[in-house]
Amino acid sequence: MKTFASFVLAAAAITLSAPAAAQFAKPEDAIKYRKASLTVMAAHFSRIGAMANGRAPFDAKLAAENADIVAAMSKLPWAAFTEGSEAGDTKAKPEIWKEPAKFKAGADKLQAEATKLAVAAKTGNLDNLKAAFGPAAETCKACHDAYRNK
Amino acid sequence: MKTFASFVLAAAAITLSAPAAAQFAKPEDAIKYRKASLTVMAAHFSRIGAMANGRAPFDAKLAAENADIVAAMSKLPWAAFTEGSEAGDTKAKPEIWKEPAKFKAGADKLQAEATKLAVAAKTGNLDNLKAAFGPAAETCKACHDAYRNK
Repeated sequence: MKTFASFVLAAAAITLSAPAAAQFAKPEDAIKYRKASLTVMAAHFSRIGAMANGRAPFDAKLAAENADIVAAMSKLPWAAFTEGSEAGDTKAKPEIWKEPAKFKAGADKLQAEATKLAVAAKTGNLDNLKAAFGPAAETCKACHDAYRNK
Repeated sequence: MKTFASFVLAAAAITLSAPAAAQFAKPEDAIKYRKASLTVMAAHFSRIGAMANGRAPFDAKLAAENADIVAAMSKLPWAAFTEGSEAGDTKAKPEIWKEPAKFKAGADKLQAEATKLAVAAKTGNLDNLKAAFGPAAETCKACHDAYRNK
């Protein structure tokens, strides 16, 4: 049941559309939300990274659970980069709003890599996990380099 | 495919175990994580509340998507109420660590109500959504009253 549940969660993550139109009353709500969703994603992603990089023992079940959460979370932050939330308590660079198609391409790539990571994690094979973790991490970094202030 | 995906996501949310043992390097990481996961859950829960309370038009697809996210998020915060994270930038009351069984019962109840809410949302019926929203909201409030400082 566990394995099936994990699989269908990944399948759902692939097909479930991102939440539609942003629904934030105030720009600061959008900023708080996108930071929060990225924080949760990062926490679970880093647990996979610890296994992929040998800093933590490989636990296939934990890896799969964390990867499913990463895949689900990877869909959430983007709707919160709303018009009007460029300023405030945020490290987001104005480029996000100046080149939305490029920003969206990065967000889409992350979601695709997160889905691949979840699929790889379900194989229970550490080499597969490592192979999928690298590109996913690079996708995080590419967007942070381009769109996040230090 | 969409409907199936939504359904299996809920099924997965029911059966997927919570992430095992907390993996936070520092107490402040745990505090940041639990706040973040609760922030994301609250954002999506409030969108369902707006529909249930007539402040937003009922959109069955959006309701189901938001309820799936709430159900998934409802599993996350609890592992972050770690020993040592009682103090810091947190509104958490010390009672959480003094009566862990009672706190866990509240967390379990929320997860159960969130699952019911996701199932209700999938019926596409506003009355079902309203019926499930109330108990879920009461569960949030009960724990906030008992365990969160103003």
